[in-house]
Amino acid sequence: MNHGGNIYQFARKIGCLPEQVLDFSANINPVQAVDLSCLQKVQLGPYADPDYNGLKQAIKQRYPYPSGVDIELFNGASAAIFALLRNLQPQDLVLYAPLYGEYAHIAEELDCKVHYIDRFSRLMADIPAHSTVIFVNPSTPDGQLYDLQALLATWQAAACTIIIDESFLDFSTARDGGSVAIGREPMRPTARDGGRDCSRQSSAFPPSMEVRSVAIGREPMQPEADSVAQHIRHYDKLYLIKSLSKFYGCAGIRIGFILAATAAIKALQRFEPAWKLSSLDMAYMQQALANTGFIEQTRQQTAHLRGLLHQALQDSGLFDKIYPGQANFLLARLANDGDGYQLQTQLESSLILIRVCDNFAGLDKSHVRFAVKDEQAIARLAYSFENIKK
Amino acid sequence: MNHGGNIYQFARKIGCLPEQVLDFSANINPVQAVDLSCLQKVQLGPYADPDYNGLKQAIKQRYPYPSGVDIELFNGASAAIFALLRNLQPQDLVLYAPLYGEYAHIAEELDCKVHYIDRFSRLMADIPAHSTVIFVNPSTPDGQLYDLQALLATWQAAACTIIIDESFLDFSTARDGGSVAIGREPMRPTARDGGRDCSRQSSAFPPSMEVRSVAIGREPMQPEADSVAQHIRHYDKLYLIKSLSKFYGCAGIRIGFILAATAAIKALQRFEPAWKLSSLDMAYMQQALANTGFIEQTRQQTAHLRGLLHQALQDSGLFDKIYPGQANFLLARLANDGDGYQLQTQLESSLILIRVCDNFAGLDKSHVRFAVKDEQAIARLAYSFENIKK
Repeated sequence: MNHGGNIYQFARKIGCLPEQVLDFSANINPVQAVDLSCLQKVQLGPYADPDYNGLKQAIKQRYPYPSGVDIELFNGASAAIFALLRNLQPQDLVLYAPLYGEYAHIAEELDCKVHYIDRFSRLMADIPAHSTVIFVNPSTPDGQLYDLQALLATWQAAACTIIIDESFLDFSTARDGGSVAIGREPMRPTARDGGRDCSRQSSAFPPSMEVRSVAIGREPMQPEADSVAQHIRHYDKLYLIKSLSKFYGCAGIRIGFILAATAAIKALQRFEPAWKLSSLDMAYMQQALANTGFIEQTRQQTAHLRGLLHQALQDSGLFDKIYPGQANFLLARLANDGDGYQLQTQLESSLILIRVCDNFAGLDKSHVRFAVKDEQAIARLAYSFENIKK
Repeated sequence: MNHGGNIYQFARKIGCLPEQVLDFSANINPVQAVDLSCLQKVQLGPYADPDYNGLKQAIKQRYPYPSGVDIELFNGASAAIFALLRNLQPQDLVLYAPLYGEYAHIAEELDCKVHYIDRFSRLMADIPAHSTVIFVNPSTPDGQLYDLQALLATWQAAACTIIIDESFLDFSTARDGGSVAIGREPMRPTARDGGRDCSRQSSAFPPSMEVRSVAIGREPMQPEADSVAQHIRHYDKLYLIKSLSKFYGCAGIRIGFILAATAAIKALQRFEPAWKLSSLDMAYMQQALANTGFIEQTRQQTAHLRGLLHQALQDSGLFDKIYPGQANFLLARLANDGDGYQLQTQLESSLILIRVCDNFAGLDKSHVRFAVKDEQAIARLAYSFENIKK
């Protein structure tokens, strides 16, 4: 459950207020699309529309999906992940690591057999047929953006259930240089599927993924990075999970969603309670989604600030590797197998909280993640680095 | 999922705005303890305290519970019910009907064997041993307040898992005249438990349930109606479910909770996602709970307005029975097996929405429920009744 650091625990330990903590540990946009004044007219008394029509419309306008695809809303992406895995009850769960620990935590509670695949070293590894795969794109904690086309074809050939978490995709554009295109050779499923050669199967995924271009706002916007939303109609075991908190800078607003084939969404809904979402959260998010100017503005600002953060990390001389990232955070590895917890302690007096990544499978405590924050925060981080003995 | 009527559907049908609907269908306090201005300082950016300490403290101050008992928060009581039943996976579910349809809906999805017991005619009926019983106190849709002592002893003797829903208990006081005390003769469990005589077993429930007296506020308050909270420490298969929306007049705020033995709560938490609750909802509810003057004020006002509503229903001459109720709603039966849907249609032109209770097990469409609303609303209802041909 360790999403970012816990600023409340940290503040108690340091003896400051939670709002004084300079939180580089949680990868949340420091800017919001709307402020709280947008809530003035919310009616708290009545039950909300049980179909969430207004919010669903706002989401569909922002993240279009074709007919045959449907949406289910959840009080946050964590709730969505839990509900989906509980519903799918996968026997074999393939996790492309490193990734957010919540997936492994849920897998453990649900008694799945977990197979880890190291994205960094053997991305095109064999996968048990009929397994459920989870891929986060861009990935955490490194922010790498992947072109998933070949992987999608491979997973489909192995008859997998596919879950793609696109919670950080909004920060990236299709032109992001670091995007990793995966080799096109389809791999063989393991013996569990009888060893049949899936490379002969035709793929339901068209060879080129369309790039959606959003023509709103005054300046021409960068084309958005590829989403798998358009591919759900070609494969009814494909699920897209998305948190809205990260890009819209509001972890306190609990709204996430799943897109999937209409029948798959219907199956999910059978086990969902009525009225899951706060009327306040819904009103806030509807108005945040309507601020289309915020999209390009956030992307440009994030790219700029990510550059500053990268520079600050590099200039510190503390790290021997900074991973290329296209999201709103950067992963760095401490030189000489350094101890992230020691760095965390050294930054405490500056009220700075960072994320040590040893609870990401495949990473150790020399890996630390920094969220992209505003210029002032990055300057304070850089200043604090200077006082640390190398 | 049919909690009250759906005012959005109704408004679309009638051609008015949802806020123009005079909603007698949803049993929500028309008054709120605090207004939205209390949200001005909420920080939306950071994740909330994952332990919800502030809110839990506010709840414990308002609804004290002893050591050995713990709490789990949910985004609404519906979510709590779903999570609890999914976790317990009961084989036999005993529902004291009539009751809120969501319980039966969930039981169906979870493939439980449902046993209905008619509260009105055979409250002390036989119960399968080791079954899970659900009792709502005060009950819906009639608002009857029960003294549960004998029932608790009986259920315990049959080794039942006990779920008590106290979502409407705050509206009642210990002195409410209509409270039904159940005869003390313990009944025999069915043959499934080998027919052993449970009357010889000693009960873990002390013979007299303590009445908590709340000494806050300026005027002496009525002692609160008995909660089962104090009994959880005597029986580790007892769960208390509570919605905060009803009494605090905010169905749009999604917060409910479960109290149970510490180990039982730990088991529940294993399957719960991180960050379930909206920061806005939490901030709102913490401040609502702190308004202690609101408690007695709401009880007195509800009792007064319930009297006016009762009078209006009686004066209409439309009903041959008005059930005695101690909550914020009244159940009435149309004379001559009248049709509640016809009455609903007749009230449409006045923009009044009522609840026909045919989807409560054991009730038919001659039963209609009216929420306690403010004086003006009740006057409008009374006026609308006058135009209906008897």
